[in-house]
Amino acid sequence: MKLTKTLALAAVAVALPALGFAQEEAAAPSAVPTDTVWILNSLLFLVGGFLVFWMAAGFAMLEAGLVRSKNVTMQLTKNVALFGIAAIMYYLIGYNLMYPLGSWAIDGYFSALFPAVAVLEPVGVAADAVDDYSYASTASDYFFQLMFCATTASIVSGTLAERIKLWPFLIFTVVLTGIIYPLQASWKWGGGFLDEMGFLDFAGSTVVHSVGGWAALVGALILGPRIGKYKDGKTIPMPGSNLALATLGTFILWLGWFGFNGGSKLAMGSIGDMADVGRIFANTNTAAAGGAIAALILSQILYKKPDLTMVLNGALAGLVSITAEPLAPTLGMATIIGAIGGVIVVFAVPLLDKLRIDDVVGAIPVHLLAGIWGTMAVPITNSDGSFMTQLISIVVVGAFVVVVSAVVWIILRVVMGLRVSEEAEIMGLDMAEMGMEAYPEFSKG
Amino acid sequence: MKLTKTLALAAVAVALPALGFAQEEAAAPSAVPTDTVWILNSLLFLVGGFLVFWMAAGFAMLEAGLVRSKNVTMQLTKNVALFGIAAIMYYLIGYNLMYPLGSWAIDGYFSALFPAVAVLEPVGVAADAVDDYSYASTASDYFFQLMFCATTASIVSGTLAERIKLWPFLIFTVVLTGIIYPLQASWKWGGGFLDEMGFLDFAGSTVVHSVGGWAALVGALILGPRIGKYKDGKTIPMPGSNLALATLGTFILWLGWFGFNGGSKLAMGSIGDMADVGRIFANTNTAAAGGAIAALILSQILYKKPDLTMVLNGALAGLVSITAEPLAPTLGMATIIGAIGGVIVVFAVPLLDKLRIDDVVGAIPVHLLAGIWGTMAVPITNSDGSFMTQLISIVVVGAFVVVVSAVVWIILRVVMGLRVSEEAEIMGLDMAEMGMEAYPEFSKG
Amino acid sequence: MKLTKTLALAAVAVALPALGFAQEEAAAPSAVPTDTVWILNSLLFLVGGFLVFWMAAGFAMLEAGLVRSKNVTMQLTKNVALFGIAAIMYYLIGYNLMYPLGSWAIDGYFSALFPAVAVLEPVGVAADAVDDYSYASTASDYFFQLMFCATTASIVSGTLAERIKLWPFLIFTVVLTGIIYPLQASWKWGGGFLDEMGFLDFAGSTVVHSVGGWAALVGALILGPRIGKYKDGKTIPMPGSNLALATLGTFILWLGWFGFNGGSKLAMGSIGDMADVGRIFANTNTAAAGGAIAALILSQILYKKPDLTMVLNGALAGLVSITAEPLAPTLGMATIIGAIGGVIVVFAVPLLDKLRIDDVVGAIPVHLLAGIWGTMAVPITNSDGSFMTQLISIVVVGAFVVVVSAVVWIILRVVMGLRVSEEAEIMGLDMAEMGMEAYPEFSKG
Repeated sequence: MKLTKTLALAAVAVALPALGFAQEEAAAPSAVPTDTVWILNSLLFLVGGFLVFWMAAGFAMLEAGLVRSKNVTMQLTKNVALFGIAAIMYYLIGYNLMYPLGSWAIDGYFSALFPAVAVLEPVGVAADAVDDYSYASTASDYFFQLMFCATTASIVSGTLAERIKLWPFLIFTVVLTGIIYPLQASWKWGGGFLDEMGFLDFAGSTVVHSVGGWAALVGALILGPRIGKYKDGKTIPMPGSNLALATLGTFILWLGWFGFNGGSKLAMGSIGDMADVGRIFANTNTAAAGGAIAALILSQILYKKPDLTMVLNGALAGLVSITAEPLAPTLGMATIIGAIGGVIVVFAVPLLDKLRIDDVVGAIPVHLLAGIWGTMAVPITNSDGSFMTQLISIVVVGAFVVVVSAVVWIILRVVMGLRVSEEAEIMGLDMAEMGMEAYPEFSKG
Repeated sequence: MKLTKTLALAAVAVALPALGFAQEEAAAPSAVPTDTVWILNSLLFLVGGFLVFWMAAGFAMLEAGLVRSKNVTMQLTKNVALFGIAAIMYYLIGYNLMYPLGSWAIDGYFSALFPAVAVLEPVGVAADAVDDYSYASTASDYFFQLMFCATTASIVSGTLAERIKLWPFLIFTVVLTGIIYPLQASWKWGGGFLDEMGFLDFAGSTVVHSVGGWAALVGALILGPRIGKYKDGKTIPMPGSNLALATLGTFILWLGWFGFNGGSKLAMGSIGDMADVGRIFANTNTAAAGGAIAALILSQILYKKPDLTMVLNGALAGLVSITAEPLAPTLGMATIIGAIGGVIVVFAVPLLDKLRIDDVVGAIPVHLLAGIWGTMAVPITNSDGSFMTQLISIVVVGAFVVVVSAVVWIILRVVMGLRVSEEAEIMGLDMAEMGMEAYPEFSKG
Repeated sequence: MKLTKTLALAAVAVALPALGFAQEEAAAPSAVPTDTVWILNSLLFLVGGFLVFWMAAGFAMLEAGLVRSKNVTMQLTKNVALFGIAAIMYYLIGYNLMYPLGSWAIDGYFSALFPAVAVLEPVGVAADAVDDYSYASTASDYFFQLMFCATTASIVSGTLAERIKLWPFLIFTVVLTGIIYPLQASWKWGGGFLDEMGFLDFAGSTVVHSVGGWAALVGALILGPRIGKYKDGKTIPMPGSNLALATLGTFILWLGWFGFNGGSKLAMGSIGDMADVGRIFANTNTAAAGGAIAALILSQILYKKPDLTMVLNGALAGLVSITAEPLAPTLGMATIIGAIGGVIVVFAVPLLDKLRIDDVVGAIPVHLLAGIWGTMAVPITNSDGSFMTQLISIVVVGAFVVVVSAVVWIILRVVMGLRVSEEAEIMGLDMAEMGMEAYPEFSKG
């Protein structure tokens, strides 16, 4: 290490004295060549992208662990299928809708419809063809952005578990990933009007998490609660079938979030950008820790017993809370922002039940409420932020998603029905709708 | 790679002596220094390598989820042990067999047999010792290539589950990872005769997946089906014990495949190479999505019910299908290539059952049939490919693996027996052979 | 981004016309620019860090799989909570204790206590501000080091499972992660007296693994064995509830270990450093393979049956064994070092039972005994090592951890009690202490 540095500086020291006027250029041998910058930016997209991909598995495990065993196969199927649909719809429509035709488009929209022609960019750009590139590999950016679109859909599936039919859910996913998500995302990340207004949402507390949360909330309201969930003004607990899976899912999401937030820096080709990515990793982690510990302590105080599902959702709420601004806060502030997310979850979960909104996995507190909190918290640590702009943006995005989601859910209800039959729900979706069980050999207690 | 290096050095050679006219060389500071290229290439091997390592866990979870609970411990043991054996055999024999003695060898074969002497390369090469390096860290290449060898063995274990004895299976693994895989891999990736013929197999639809598939097929034929699987011309379903695990395994494999295909670019030290890696990630992902959605829709149409195991195997078949050529196709074509892989699985699984070939996890359709499809699909998108060459190569590799595998399986059957006793099979391999259960407390329904 | 490019181009345009004698600088285009070095080093910390983070999930799954189902929820809760505590304590105290105030501190200790002020380093350092940086991003280093601290705590939780109360365990974790771990780690990695003595511990066989192991051992002695574990001089087997989870946990740990050992190179900005990282990956992998295969063969020989839990702990012991020196050994030596770790586990597990030390998951053999072995093995392959120095360091660290841990455990026992009531232990900690079950629907056999 020291050798490298010394040698390089020595080279400069030797070379420059003769130059005279060049001395103020002494920084040159430290500079990252532009091709290296391009490569490092692309690498950030790919590593960030595969980490966010991994979140799809996290949602699948979390949700499979939190539903009853009679609905596990269906929940797993929904999670794999929604990711597949997101990948296809974001390719066909979403990416071009989000980054309108131009430098960022995949050869324009029409060629995208003719896949034999469409290419992301020329294969094997020669290393010296410096004119052909701008910032990073288009394919790597596409790969990274796709994963955010899929995340939005993953959020919805948990809330509506155990009662929604497969196909209406998947058709909603088609609209969500093809149109709803990309359109509103373009308002901020495509350089649209929210971005011009000064709305700040670094990695998507609003653009991703609240969008999934709003769509889930509207779905839950239209779908209604599970049979037997609310009886005589009381909430009947329906405990998840596999808390080990739910914990695994939470750890997967936590891991994936380093890519989610860190990758959203969109660049690591300078020491400034790389320093930022490092700070984002550290802040993201500590916010999750804050959320988990806050929920642990609060559930101990309120209920006299620690509650693992609260701890898990607390960690996730901490992650959602820091997502709008993972860079500006200090480690201490990030921990506090995350901890407040955890507190929100502990209070919001029973509150939703009082409102008879049946959110099977707690996705509305975690993604919508902590998402709003995280978005509103941006101006606390980032002086470029304005509370009013943040609030307006939350409302604009929320109103759009609520209205469009409601229209889509209602059309689906009218046309094909949203809910499985009462018998199917009681028997469980796995046997009723799929004819297979997730754990066929383990007898149910 | 070579282009970068040559151009950059040429630029220096030309520019420095005379300077003056060197201003048109202003593009030089964009060039990636050769040491950086070497580092980035090595980094790709390491990141790709740990992702492919992770696939070993994916196979373990997939197979543990798809066998009956009475055989889960044995299946897990086989998966951990086969990876350990692959690591040792590829070190002792495989790597040097695949990349014959010379620049790529680990200090030559004999020193490898004397581990106290053998080193991969000098430790702590000084940063300025530019003469000592060629392309990337040998150790990183070794690490990456080893994982492919282990993958081949993982494929076999699933097909033969629930009836094969542990030790014959592990001895077969010794031969597969020490000799069969590396020898045929050298024909393509070691610069052998298939490579010279123009055979194209980017990341191993044939070299890895079909090889595992052929070995599994021969094993299944020699071993015979599980007791009670085929009765009176009917196939008796033996559902997997844990579909959550199977889904987790599929997500792990999907994640690992970014390393499998992306790492197989073998370079990311120029913007051209990096752009390619990005395209490969995007194509790999979309092929899996295509496979999953095709299998979902097709199983819904054929059986009126979506089938999760088909969806999972559909995704995997999509991944295998794109593995022979993940770079040339557009996103649209990659999706279609993957979707066809998914269709193959849905038709091939019942077909194998009709042929009374008992493939417990569906590895033959996924890895062998989709592997053949993926290999034959190369010339569709890559004009360097020839259908005839692809076909000949598939046949050559297949014939070699079938013959050698058959000999090894038959010797093992004669010498020590391949199959557990009938009582052991009915009782389950876990209690009969290992005296321990995977889920000892959950009573069986 | 644009700044870099403009400056670099300007430098060339300005510098080249005058040069002349610069021809001996022709090697320059191979050299990695210092900014790139800084970026690559930081990237290694971040990738290494997220891999080691993932080990927290590995411990959680391993332990959840090896406890009985009535204690799974508690074990999961402990694992998530201990990570959260580690993150907070290492921020508040640990990092500054380990790397005393100065260049490596987070803006000094006092600002760290006032989170609104404390920042890891200036956000958005301009790409040309070369004076502001030294070696790598402080945040990335913090992120990486934190994960090692958390790992130490994860080790303890497994040994003490199924009988320790949640809160005393978490309070112990506060002391362990805030003081015990960082203080002794500073003796080696903070440049303290063990480092000056010439103690070698590359990635922490002693500094991390034995520390967790000693703390666990002392806890186990003070806590006593589980009810019914030892009866009439016999050890009663209490098999783990989910060996699939335990296997998953082992694979996760194996994967994370590439970051644990590879990242501990602390640099990949030169071809020498990168070559070392590659070697470390390969050696780490082969040591795990050696441990797994040795334990498999040995358990087959000793007990006539292969034992999956021995194979898993064998792999982990192999990993711990190579952690003190993953760079110097050849692949062959690394395999043997790991294999000896596996042998240690197979003999030590029953030995501990004979001593009536109840280590639920086998963490003491894996982390303490293999950690000692790995530390003592350093001088075999690294000529800078001294057996005496290694031994003294093991004893110093061990004595410190044993004494301080004992004091803390005893205070906790006096003040609040360490152990759950007999009824709670028999009923299971999940229902007794938490009122929730991990697998509520699966009836127990």
